[in-house]
Amino acid sequence: MKVKYYLLVLFIALGFSVISAQAQNQPTDSVVIRSLFREALTNGKSYESLRFLCTQIGPRLSGSTGAVKAVAWTKRLMEGYGFDRVYLQEVMVPHWERGEKEKATIKWANQKQDVPVCALGGSVGTGKKGITAPVVEVHTFEELKALGRAQVQGKVVFFNRPMNPAYTETFLAYRDAVNQRSSGAIEAAKLGAVGVIVRSMNLALDDFPHTGSTRYEEGGIKIPAVAISTNGAELLSRQLKAAPNLQFYFKMNPQTLPDALSHNVIGEIKGAEHPDEIILVGGHLDSWDLAQGAHDDGTGCMQAIEVLRLMKALNIKPKRTIRAVMYMNEENGLRGGQKYAAEALANKEKHLAALESDAGGFTPRGFSIEATPDKVAAIARWKDLLAPYGLHAINAGGGGADIGPLKNGKTTLIGFRPDSQRYFEIHHAATDTFDRVNQRELELGGASMAALIFLIDKYGL
Amino acid sequence: MKVKYYLLVLFIALGFSVISAQAQNQPTDSVVIRSLFREALTNGKSYESLRFLCTQIGPRLSGSTGAVKAVAWTKRLMEGYGFDRVYLQEVMVPHWERGEKEKATIKWANQKQDVPVCALGGSVGTGKKGITAPVVEVHTFEELKALGRAQVQGKVVFFNRPMNPAYTETFLAYRDAVNQRSSGAIEAAKLGAVGVIVRSMNLALDDFPHTGSTRYEEGGIKIPAVAISTNGAELLSRQLKAAPNLQFYFKMNPQTLPDALSHNVIGEIKGAEHPDEIILVGGHLDSWDLAQGAHDDGTGCMQAIEVLRLMKALNIKPKRTIRAVMYMNEENGLRGGQKYAAEALANKEKHLAALESDAGGFTPRGFSIEATPDKVAAIARWKDLLAPYGLHAINAGGGGADIGPLKNGKTTLIGFRPDSQRYFEIHHAATDTFDRVNQRELELGGASMAALIFLIDKYGL
Repeated sequence: MKVKYYLLVLFIALGFSVISAQAQNQPTDSVVIRSLFREALTNGKSYESLRFLCTQIGPRLSGSTGAVKAVAWTKRLMEGYGFDRVYLQEVMVPHWERGEKEKATIKWANQKQDVPVCALGGSVGTGKKGITAPVVEVHTFEELKALGRAQVQGKVVFFNRPMNPAYTETFLAYRDAVNQRSSGAIEAAKLGAVGVIVRSMNLALDDFPHTGSTRYEEGGIKIPAVAISTNGAELLSRQLKAAPNLQFYFKMNPQTLPDALSHNVIGEIKGAEHPDEIILVGGHLDSWDLAQGAHDDGTGCMQAIEVLRLMKALNIKPKRTIRAVMYMNEENGLRGGQKYAAEALANKEKHLAALESDAGGFTPRGFSIEATPDKVAAIARWKDLLAPYGLHAINAGGGGADIGPLKNGKTTLIGFRPDSQRYFEIHHAATDTFDRVNQRELELGGASMAALIFLIDKYGL
Repeated sequence: MKVKYYLLVLFIALGFSVISAQAQNQPTDSVVIRSLFREALTNGKSYESLRFLCTQIGPRLSGSTGAVKAVAWTKRLMEGYGFDRVYLQEVMVPHWERGEKEKATIKWANQKQDVPVCALGGSVGTGKKGITAPVVEVHTFEELKALGRAQVQGKVVFFNRPMNPAYTETFLAYRDAVNQRSSGAIEAAKLGAVGVIVRSMNLALDDFPHTGSTRYEEGGIKIPAVAISTNGAELLSRQLKAAPNLQFYFKMNPQTLPDALSHNVIGEIKGAEHPDEIILVGGHLDSWDLAQGAHDDGTGCMQAIEVLRLMKALNIKPKRTIRAVMYMNEENGLRGGQKYAAEALANKEKHLAALESDAGGFTPRGFSIEATPDKVAAIARWKDLLAPYGLHAINAGGGGADIGPLKNGKTTLIGFRPDSQRYFEIHHAATDTFDRVNQRELELGGASMAALIFLIDKYGL
């Protein structure tokens, strides 16, 4: 017994010393995270990749040639980094095309004034001659309903409720205003309107109309829907007070074509210990057709790829499989997110966590976590490791649209939360271009995501 | 005794109920802070004031006509808001003028290439013919000293140590690089150099030279000093490898004129209970001559004024005197800060705290506090009130240049800390213009400062 006990003690002591030596040889978490940031800020690739995606490929709405090019290029980009597996996942997507540039004119007495508009995504057209009709301005659906058919029939309904600037977090202002864009055409059509004009979802006053998807009810009447720039909305509202009987002319002829074959683009580093456990990081590759889709969501895609590249560059061998997913069709269908989740379910894939970057490539502020409270708390415990990089806001909250379909009560969904002040000035507008992206802000975002993925992989959830 | 005791209990009970009723009638701190942000974001004046300062007055280096105009306009602006007292404080300031636009050319073999340069503030000129000399590139003063007089004499020393991009906080990168600009000419002159070229203090690669003050030793030899754009620095460095004997030509003829009379511009709201206790909030009104001085430091000045305006707009009657100070001559002398502190001392003014905004008008991140640990802790205790507005980083740290001379072991000095990622792309360069300022970011900053001032005034320190 004594000898055995002695050996046991020796064994434990040796074991401890081995563990201790391993711990000493392993860099601490803070050192690894520091290295991820240093690599991103001194040798990052996301900015130059984003430059190519934005300026050489450009707009890439589902079904467009830009989307096809983006899929092929993104696959090659990841192959070039030597990830363990790079592949495409087929998905049928809607194919809506804007067609000729839209026109809109306010006409009163013998005067007229052009205003900047764009068709909302998915809208039907006006016909070649366009539509001319009087305008009724409302701010809420309640106000619209109170007007009733008598005051709406035959008119264009002008939804002019501004985003509320009093919020610090601009996504809350978007949440409060966006039903005008998404459902305005449905509500107006019910009362006999012939079209809708929606004030752009933009916190600034400027001359750029902001597109975004609009919906119709199954079997309902479809009326054309345009976004008007915020300056245009202010002008129209003033003019309506001066000349309530003014006429609004607009012409646009977008088309909805048959669904098209497209792809989610996927790359991964295989896990060394638990290859069947997946930690996903992603953004969406499609973008609206008016601009380059820089912040929405070229930045998210290039950051997701950068997460894997950073791990390879630092020779981090993850225990679990780290998978970057560039989703197709977030903007007008979410088919990529739905298809990915359906395939994951069919293949019995286990997703430990999914992290989405789709709020712009601005300075990182934190993460919002959609999971059980214990998992939110588990991530919040890493705050001392993350706060030195400005990642202070680690709270319960929404994960994101594309990863939403993965929700199953087990997978932790996480939204990357950058600073939101500038996002809605460029969101879905012609101003969402590469020159609006700051290199350091973009790189800090990729490194922030890599740091969180590193911790989740190392410690689990 | 019993009756007295009964009365005492009754009195205490009544007293408590009165206090309780008062507490109920007074809005809670979080409600007041919410109101400050709402007013700033929905009815803020700082952005339009900044537009005027930047676009109608423009550059305002000490001694310039722009500075004179800015002093008069800022005084009128505060008078228009009806502050209790608005006045000027005389201060003699340096008067340096850039003169004709600088020229610089790299010459080798039969080729030449112009590069963008600007004189560093305070530099002497080259004479009308300019200077042509060979170049020696160094990265540190140690490297320069190791070269010795033999390899430096008669040459232009090229200081080419980049700002370190690996820092998350860009001011640390500035701290590490700026001695090249401030003292490069001193060190190079000691070894017989005929001029210095300093890589611009800029984290981005672009074509804009960044000025900033350079120093000479009392009685030392003064040699001309230029900043070169970061792209220009990269080009020159490459070219030096290919053609080590290349010649660098540059011509500039700035002048140092006699000191000029100028002013700090001061406005205040008198304290209702302790008018002799001052809480100062400020920025600097002077700016470099190359641009509009938008982020440096038009934003800080307009935010300081907005703090007082917000308090008036919300009918907040401070206990203590809240004083906005627009300092003159931060950039090339700090005479305004020194004069203000000297006057405060002479007049036995008691400054409870001083808050400076001179790090740009970007999204607020927090405050750095230069005070005893108990006062740092006192401010940090308000973090739950401030964090909802993104003010997470409340730490010990530097206050600021202009308020520095107030340091006396009692006054709490505080630096407003906005996001720093974009600052050094525009700092002291022609790109520091109004269009680089985001309205919401600016307004959030003013409201953040007002919230902190409100708490300091209410609770003391």
